[in-house]
Amino acid sequence: MIGSINHIAIAVHDLGVASAHWRERVGAVVSAPQRFPKHGVKVVFIAASNGKVELLEPLDDKSPIAKFLERNPDGGLHHICFDVPDLIASRDQLLATGARILGSPDPKIGAHGKPVLFIHPKDLTGTLIELQQA
Amino acid sequence: MIGSINHIAIAVHDLGVASAHWRERVGAVVSAPQRFPKHGVKVVFIAASNGKVELLEPLDDKSPIAKFLERNPDGGLHHICFDVPDLIASRDQLLATGARILGSPDPKIGAHGKPVLFIHPKDLTGTLIELQQA
Repeated sequence: MIGSINHIAIAVHDLGVASAHWRERVGAVVSAPQRFPKHGVKVVFIAASNGKVELLEPLDDKSPIAKFLERNPDGGLHHICFDVPDLIASRDQLLATGARILGSPDPKIGAHGKPVLFIHPKDLTGTLIELQQA
Repeated sequence: MIGSINHIAIAVHDLGVASAHWRERVGAVVSAPQRFPKHGVKVVFIAASNGKVELLEPLDDKSPIAKFLERNPDGGLHHICFDVPDLIASRDQLLATGARILGSPDPKIGAHGKPVLFIHPKDLTGTLIELQQA
């Protein structure tokens, strides 16, 4: 059911500093920042040949990643997103096998304009996994 | 300089439980476990169409991931590994730009039989990054 890895997300306090470190230290190609006010984040994309890394900076204290940064003041790995061919079937399989969906089990439109849901980290190896309709 | 994403590593207490959750809850195809005693871990691989996820279980208390699991009792995202075309050039660029290498700056042979090094997480957005000679 899980398809390709869509992105790996890293939470950071300051996109400018983080982008400079990725550019200068490991030669990453980093995009210009984009704001996603509905999702409470500002994002840059780092392209690898087979996927992408997203650096996320919270827009304010209510951003979903603000609390994560309180616990992880250096920043850190926040989630992995996988594309799935049928998000509703994935959701139903999760619920049938005892895994919880964060928030409502109805998919929401994610930052990339496609339906997404997040699996409760406690129900999948302590790791926040986003599933996105391919 | 960074090339493709080689793998995403998740630390877990129990590969059997973790593998079952990934199989049953998100339909992952999970390999049989392999032991890497030199690296202190037992590993299964989850294949996605464009990369792989590795679940790592410590072989004992001295395993490099044992401490991580003490701090993260549910398990969690541990590191990302990127392939690089020239590991020594990557190392030199890291050191020249003020980033630290964990342990000796001389690459070691990693679990996949290729030279690797790990960047200090504090020097790259709080994220443990492994670089592997492509």
